[in-house]
Amino acid sequence: MDTIHLIPNNSLLTATPEEGRQLAIKLARLIIKATQPDESKRQQLREIYANDAMMLIAIGQTVATEFATIAAANHYWR
Amino acid sequence: MDTIHLIPNNSLLTATPEEGRQLAIKLARLIIKATQPDESKRQQLREIYANDAMMLIAIGQTVATEFATIAAANHYWR
Amino acid sequence: MDTIHLIPNNSLLTATPEEGRQLAIKLARLIIKATQPDESKRQQLREIYANDAMMLIAIGQTVATEFATIAAANHYWR
Amino acid sequence: MDTIHLIPNNSLLTATPEEGRQLAIKLARLIIKATQPDESKRQQLREIYANDAMMLIAIGQTVATEFATIAAANHYWR
Amino acid sequence: MDTIHLIPNNSLLTATPEEGRQLAIKLARLIIKATQPDESKRQQLREIYANDAMMLIAIGQTVATEFATIAAANHYWR
Amino acid sequence: MDTIHLIPNNSLLTATPEEGRQLAIKLARLIIKATQPDESKRQQLREIYANDAMMLIAIGQTVATEFATIAAANHYWR
Repeated sequence: MDTIHLIPNNSLLTATPEEGRQLAIKLARLIIKATQPDESKRQQLREIYANDAMMLIAIGQTVATEFATIAAANHYWR
Repeated sequence: MDTIHLIPNNSLLTATPEEGRQLAIKLARLIIKATQPDESKRQQLREIYANDAMMLIAIGQTVATEFATIAAANHYWR
Repeated sequence: MDTIHLIPNNSLLTATPEEGRQLAIKLARLIIKATQPDESKRQQLREIYANDAMMLIAIGQTVATEFATIAAANHYWR
Repeated sequence: MDTIHLIPNNSLLTATPEEGRQLAIKLARLIIKATQPDESKRQQLREIYANDAMMLIAIGQTVATEFATIAAANHYWR
Repeated sequence: MDTIHLIPNNSLLTATPEEGRQLAIKLARLIIKATQPDESKRQQLREIYANDAMMLIAIGQTVATEFATIAAANHYWR
Repeated sequence: MDTIHLIPNNSLLTATPEEGRQLAIKLARLIIKATQPDESKRQQLREIYANDAMMLIAIGQTVATEFATIAAANHYWR
């Protein structure tokens, strides 16, 4: 059995742009989780980046890049 | 009912490039909002990044990446 | 009437690569203007980033990303 | 014989998005390994970036960029 | 007469990949020149970024982005 | 005679993904070389970035961007 860790449902296809956007956020978070598996440590770091303007902007950049791929996969939900 | 949080109107399609650009800014802001839901905290951070040259440039980079996706979705409004 | 703020002429199409490049610079600047509307404040920040090597490089990165979209919109002026 | 160092199986093609995501992480790590071949040194650096919010975000950005290429190679596993 | 400032020969098309790469470097430099027109000031900044590891990497990132556009314009010189 | 400085063999085409990856690393390094031609200085900087977690991540980002172009040029070696 193949355990899914990095992509929910093992698919880039979503019904709507909104769900695509939620997937982009999840993909970004799962990379952080794969790199720092300790939940309590991640909780501390979340406190840091949620209160740092530059880090919030950088998170936006990462999500934008993930979303570009998901949007292309879904033919932009046209 | 599906509440929309991350993409206004749940669509990447816009009538004009100008509206596409406005959407890009909104998408970028909604990721910050999803990561830092506290409005008063976000207000403080806005004060910081609106007065920091490097952060303004980084916001420009993020919006440019979001816009690339929106522009492709709209066949560049050709 | 729809006031244009973020894209001059509300179009990504330009006659030449040179004009496409000028548009890329304008798009990048208009995001900074939308985020920091105070002209005198922007003037101060311009003094900062025009004299900071890392910020100039980051501006180059942002313009390159904007230009990629404009160039694709124009079929690379082939 | 051609020794493979930078891409496992010398291919961008994977059976699933999940495997594509794992490949993206490996590609990113193998560039770090190629630049810093000393295993003990890399172990020290891993301790640093796994506990630094900004670095974790930056890793996410890099993996997102690698994944964009892998996803395109696989026609997004549509 | 249209004075060219930002793209030599007002074209993204080059005979070879090597020339495409040289063009990418020029495009990146001309954005810096447009933002900081003072030649003596740019000379000082060049001294700084040519001796700073992080800035050299960031320049590489910018040139890579410019080159992606130029390579696409030239159908990758296939 | 056209001296090649920035792209080995003056081509983006490679036989395998592995070779494409090696080319991506070379392209990134040759931009650094073009910007800082002094070999002994580059040796000092290499010592710095090979031991700095953030710089290693940034190198990974640059190589990923170069590789995206090379992979597209090679139709992803499908």
